[in-house]
Amino acid sequence: MAQRIIFTNEVQDAVSALIHEMNPSRVFVVADENTARVVVPQMNVEHDKLIVVSAGDENKNLESAQIIWDALQTNGATRHSLVINVGGGMVTDLGGFAAATFKRGLQFVNVPTTLLGAVDASGGGKTGINYHSLKNEIGVFAPAHAVVISSRFFATLPHREFLSGYAEMIKHALLDSEAHLHELLTYPVQDMDAEKMLEMLRKSVHIKEQIVMQDPEEKGLRKALNLGHTVGHAFESLALRRNNPVPHGYAVACGLVTELVLSHMLMKFPSGILQQTATFVLENYGAFPITCKDYDTLLSLMAHDKKSLSGEINCTLLADCGNYKTDVSISPEDMKAALDIYCDLLHL
Amino acid sequence: MAQRIIFTNEVQDAVSALIHEMNPSRVFVVADENTARVVVPQMNVEHDKLIVVSAGDENKNLESAQIIWDALQTNGATRHSLVINVGGGMVTDLGGFAAATFKRGLQFVNVPTTLLGAVDASGGGKTGINYHSLKNEIGVFAPAHAVVISSRFFATLPHREFLSGYAEMIKHALLDSEAHLHELLTYPVQDMDAEKMLEMLRKSVHIKEQIVMQDPEEKGLRKALNLGHTVGHAFESLALRRNNPVPHGYAVACGLVTELVLSHMLMKFPSGILQQTATFVLENYGAFPITCKDYDTLLSLMAHDKKSLSGEINCTLLADCGNYKTDVSISPEDMKAALDIYCDLLHL
Repeated sequence: MAQRIIFTNEVQDAVSALIHEMNPSRVFVVADENTARVVVPQMNVEHDKLIVVSAGDENKNLESAQIIWDALQTNGATRHSLVINVGGGMVTDLGGFAAATFKRGLQFVNVPTTLLGAVDASGGGKTGINYHSLKNEIGVFAPAHAVVISSRFFATLPHREFLSGYAEMIKHALLDSEAHLHELLTYPVQDMDAEKMLEMLRKSVHIKEQIVMQDPEEKGLRKALNLGHTVGHAFESLALRRNNPVPHGYAVACGLVTELVLSHMLMKFPSGILQQTATFVLENYGAFPITCKDYDTLLSLMAHDKKSLSGEINCTLLADCGNYKTDVSISPEDMKAALDIYCDLLHL
Repeated sequence: MAQRIIFTNEVQDAVSALIHEMNPSRVFVVADENTARVVVPQMNVEHDKLIVVSAGDENKNLESAQIIWDALQTNGATRHSLVINVGGGMVTDLGGFAAATFKRGLQFVNVPTTLLGAVDASGGGKTGINYHSLKNEIGVFAPAHAVVISSRFFATLPHREFLSGYAEMIKHALLDSEAHLHELLTYPVQDMDAEKMLEMLRKSVHIKEQIVMQDPEEKGLRKALNLGHTVGHAFESLALRRNNPVPHGYAVACGLVTELVLSHMLMKFPSGILQQTATFVLENYGAFPITCKDYDTLLSLMAHDKKSLSGEINCTLLADCGNYKTDVSISPEDMKAALDIYCDLLHL
């Protein structure tokens, strides 16, 4: 389910050209209360109706889908109408689901406004809503007609949110090449240049696209994208148990450091690159705080990760940038040793 | 979106074989309160959970979908679970929609229990629910893993409901051959033989499948299946306005007679076959009652049929059995003349 991805900072031109090309009977824009206020006016695209939903993942639910369905119905949407989703992953997941299920499928275009949403754009048409607090429990696979990626809205985001997406870009670079990683680790993230950022995004999305295309059914290769996430998810869950949640990307950044340590231990990943990555993470994200008293909890969380079927701990590891191995089984001893070194590297 | 269709009266064996082959993590059966009581025990297939929804098209709604989602969630459905929908079109549309949207798509098997559901089985994976009283407003295209068609449950149906499906079979026969039509018009519908009926169903579904396969995107050829429906829908709508609804198949049967009259007038369709069909309809369905005072209303309804884009009246007509032409534009005068002859033929 490939989606057409358009990289541009001329969002108005790109979306207008898409509308011209698709010639829909009506144009609906779906946004949350923030993007409706800040981004939609900047986009300045002609539309018949703006549909606004409440912001936040807790509103990615059936009630919000109904708000969209109701607005489509009362404003005369036909099978040939177009829905343009403007927002973060919450809006594109929800708006995509509502569009894909209205009259058995309206076409939709996504305009991600967050870095994480942009980096995830090649995910292959996943739409969905949460249901009874289970994430993405109701949804369908439905590719957007197009995804318009720009970097111009990121400046309106909190830096924290920007960095959260940047961790996924670092992951993609690690799966690509040392030069790509070097580019990211030396980029002035505090003082982003929108055009340069767009170029980097293009490269980053391309890496993910290549991996997804080689494994459309999520059988094996795509697990490469799990790099940093076995440990990262455990950090994220531990933070939740402490009632002190961390952004996903922050947990992933620290997870990447730990899994690079394992890569060094078990697959001779170069220590210099490990060191540079750890330094970048420490300076920009800070260390996710753990002590050796947390190890058993963390190991148990890793063994029960939803992507682990066997109860074993599995990681994607690297012999070098771009040279990865999926499903490497990690012994508890090795994981504890890696966590020790993580603590040292990040000065815990 | 082809669906595998299995014709058999050994439903238990067929469904058990499918379960064995698919090896699902759990098996859920969706039925309405009638099929749960009458059909599911006869089917006698092992399952983990029976999910019962209220019967009737007025319950093909989001609330019923939620009943199914809730039951799937609380009974541990995974992506590898199987949903078996047992019932008429209401159950297969609803259960198919709920399955297709749960965790972005569980596999499902349909066991239609009505003749209309069986004849419609090759429709190409349409699922859906009604929303704010608009039919099938929310839904997705999702083919069933398999459809198990048998004739053994029809005996439990009111004869009226059986005849409603039989009108669609007559339509398919008209689109196929004179021999096929003759077989249906001489079949003792009051005293059905289940095995012979299954053979006839196989032939009927095959005709529809051929037409759908040649036009998967519903652009043109598939409009052949609209035979009888331009006038039939108008009869159905008129009956609703009179607060005296008729079953869809009854309206279609009388619509077929009228459109065969037009076929005779405009395309030399053989009058003998027209006469035989009219006699069968009169004896089994009776005449849908109209007078010349209804003509203007009927013509206006036909011109506003949702399949008519231009405001013209369009019909699929036949030069002979199996020789059809779609989108024939009908003048008001010709339509009125055909309605006059319809009234004569059916002794109105």
